[in-house]
Amino acid sequence: MKQADIIICGDYVVTMNEKMDLITKGAIAIKDGRIIDIGQENSIRKNYLSKTLIDGKDKALLPGLINTHTHAAMVYYRGLADDLPLKEWWEQHMFPAETKTLSHEFILDALELACLEMIKSGVTTFNDMYFFGDSAAESTIKSGIRGIIGVGILDFPSVSAKTQEEYFNNVQVLIDKYKGHELITPCISPHALYTCSPETFKKAQEMAEKHDISIHIHLSETEWEVSEILSRYGKRPVNLLHSIGFLSQRVLAAHCVWLNDEEIDLLAQTGTSVSHCLESNMKLASGFAPIVKMIKSGVNVSIGTDGAASNNDLSMIGEMSTVAKVHKAIEKDPTAIDDRTTLKMATINGAKALAMEHLIGSLEKGKYADIVSINLKKPHLTPLYDIYSHIVYSSISSDVDTVIVNGKLLMENGYVLTLDEDEVIKKSNKWVDQISKFKK
Amino acid sequence: MKQADIIICGDYVVTMNEKMDLITKGAIAIKDGRIIDIGQENSIRKNYLSKTLIDGKDKALLPGLINTHTHAAMVYYRGLADDLPLKEWWEQHMFPAETKTLSHEFILDALELACLEMIKSGVTTFNDMYFFGDSAAESTIKSGIRGIIGVGILDFPSVSAKTQEEYFNNVQVLIDKYKGHELITPCISPHALYTCSPETFKKAQEMAEKHDISIHIHLSETEWEVSEILSRYGKRPVNLLHSIGFLSQRVLAAHCVWLNDEEIDLLAQTGTSVSHCLESNMKLASGFAPIVKMIKSGVNVSIGTDGAASNNDLSMIGEMSTVAKVHKAIEKDPTAIDDRTTLKMATINGAKALAMEHLIGSLEKGKYADIVSINLKKPHLTPLYDIYSHIVYSSISSDVDTVIVNGKLLMENGYVLTLDEDEVIKKSNKWVDQISKFKK
Repeated sequence: MKQADIIICGDYVVTMNEKMDLITKGAIAIKDGRIIDIGQENSIRKNYLSKTLIDGKDKALLPGLINTHTHAAMVYYRGLADDLPLKEWWEQHMFPAETKTLSHEFILDALELACLEMIKSGVTTFNDMYFFGDSAAESTIKSGIRGIIGVGILDFPSVSAKTQEEYFNNVQVLIDKYKGHELITPCISPHALYTCSPETFKKAQEMAEKHDISIHIHLSETEWEVSEILSRYGKRPVNLLHSIGFLSQRVLAAHCVWLNDEEIDLLAQTGTSVSHCLESNMKLASGFAPIVKMIKSGVNVSIGTDGAASNNDLSMIGEMSTVAKVHKAIEKDPTAIDDRTTLKMATINGAKALAMEHLIGSLEKGKYADIVSINLKKPHLTPLYDIYSHIVYSSISSDVDTVIVNGKLLMENGYVLTLDEDEVIKKSNKWVDQISKFKK
Repeated sequence: MKQADIIICGDYVVTMNEKMDLITKGAIAIKDGRIIDIGQENSIRKNYLSKTLIDGKDKALLPGLINTHTHAAMVYYRGLADDLPLKEWWEQHMFPAETKTLSHEFILDALELACLEMIKSGVTTFNDMYFFGDSAAESTIKSGIRGIIGVGILDFPSVSAKTQEEYFNNVQVLIDKYKGHELITPCISPHALYTCSPETFKKAQEMAEKHDISIHIHLSETEWEVSEILSRYGKRPVNLLHSIGFLSQRVLAAHCVWLNDEEIDLLAQTGTSVSHCLESNMKLASGFAPIVKMIKSGVNVSIGTDGAASNNDLSMIGEMSTVAKVHKAIEKDPTAIDDRTTLKMATINGAKALAMEHLIGSLEKGKYADIVSINLKKPHLTPLYDIYSHIVYSSISSDVDTVIVNGKLLMENGYVLTLDEDEVIKKSNKWVDQISKFKK
């Protein structure tokens, strides 16, 4: 008998490996943060001794969900200003609120709430883009989930930095502190082509290459952005980035709503990944990203929730259900995107987008033990004919029962172990008066 | 002090009355199934004595949600065959499954599951269209929610009837048994113009007028339907129904995806209500109903989930969130439909669609006590700046905490009192082997 730290079982183990193996009455043995074995429950329990054994009755195990685009701290602006034109939403509410309320303390507190919400909804890795990255990292580590912390770069002063030097220094500080950390991965985030010059993008790329980190950007989110970049530089956004040699497997581009066929091909050829943020794109009326075409062209498409100020939640489960349905109607084809493809987008494609597919995104021997269990004993998940269908079309965030990240139990039977839920909610409510000033 | 049966309190009472009054620290006094008073908690508790007092801390009270189009029993086909072209889905899976598995016993059991799911997600009234209406009524009464039971009419034999006489007799049986019942309202449901002749529609209308009951139909769901009706009768579906004098306030038309401007005006002029089934329309790739135009033209638009075989749930909360977001992107206007309009669609507009706006759909003195409480103490509902935003954009079904229908407590703190959840799930699972034969 070999030793494991945890054995977790499931009536269904949805591996999301290359062959899409589905194990019924399966189990996973975990040791030192990694999956050391996966197979039939009988066989795993015969071969491993474990201090912790988690029962699998009425449970489905799946790889932790990967949210590839968010501004996690914006949970504090959730529902602050809805149903407004983008310009008014941004100029009269979000930007003033950020200018007046953001601080290290804000990020510390807000990230606890965001991580709590993500744990409870089965997200085990999130790809963030915001400010005060060291505070974001601190609360992420406390919560126990995996964070790719993208330090935002702008060509104008903000609460986070006054000069370009200071912006880039913020990235350096995070790299120095967290490079090689087991949960935190530093990342550089030139915000968008309408807020950063191509020169700034190149400078960010150089820094990313030097330190071998990822780049996380906004790209072609709105029709306005495309025409603005066209008029400033004579090129559409993707063409412009390609012309300066910026696109590569290192780059994750969020949104990509307004692309022409040539641009889709460029993303595919360069291995640039996309984070599809459908609910946010719809809520801000930005449009529908042509993801069916992208997938057919070979672009790696993952899923992001965007910030909760434009969604209004961080639920990848909700996002999957929306993605799988909306694009059928857009394409006038009920087979356009199926449940399996959608779950890939939320797991293994997300891992690829973050250049972490050797570590996370599927349940396989040797990968980090980032595992989510869904409680299937619910009226809305009854009866069950196909587990993929239920995960994508019928489950809701609260069906997430148990969450393991890096081999550590973060939630068991719906009870979060790393953060005090009542305390986090209480702390969040203390910010309401101050933030409410920027309410619609 | 006056006597009440129940006093239920809430940090927010979302009345959805004509003036959209929102009461903070409010309460509702209930007696003999009706709301006898509504106001500030202080004042209600000073004026009424009650056996049952339900605390309102961290709770929002709203009118029970009204699902205006479903085939509730189809929960048993949830996830049986997804991601297929409509024709294949229907001909190779749904229709054979219905032919071989539907029975009184099936409906009795399936309706328990459907009602359980609806109670747990805050639905207090559903407008059904299916077969074996007496069995549907029986389980609905057991569950305690309000059902408008539409007896399906087809121009060809089915499990429910062999002849037209038998179909209409099924309606008569339900009327005889349930006319005037406190929870069950009989209704007649000629299925659609492609399965029933205009003569059958007229005959259904005569019966509806004779007994003063509602008519529930499918209308212009797919592009195929419109061209089929055009080629059969030389008129588009809405034009055809108008030409035979069928459209009126008595009629609730589900779907209405493919309408031209003239047809929208006809629905508005005749007072015909619409049930918007967005998630089903997307999942089957039927299209996007032009509801923004309909609302502007004065059509009463409500929301339905359709059956769980094409959704795949009965959650009105999920449906609201989708409706409010999708149409912003379709219209390229983030103000196209706001949170308040969406909540109206799911409550008071639903009541109007069922000709029950004097009885349900808002929290007002004299109306039935059909009340839902949402538990706001959740990470994904924190912080709170606007209660409508949270209900529409951020809440999920499992946030529903307490449900009262007709003045009777059906669920308290997430625990359903009228049905045994474990038993209903167990009973449902007994049908799986038989139904699985028709799996994709």
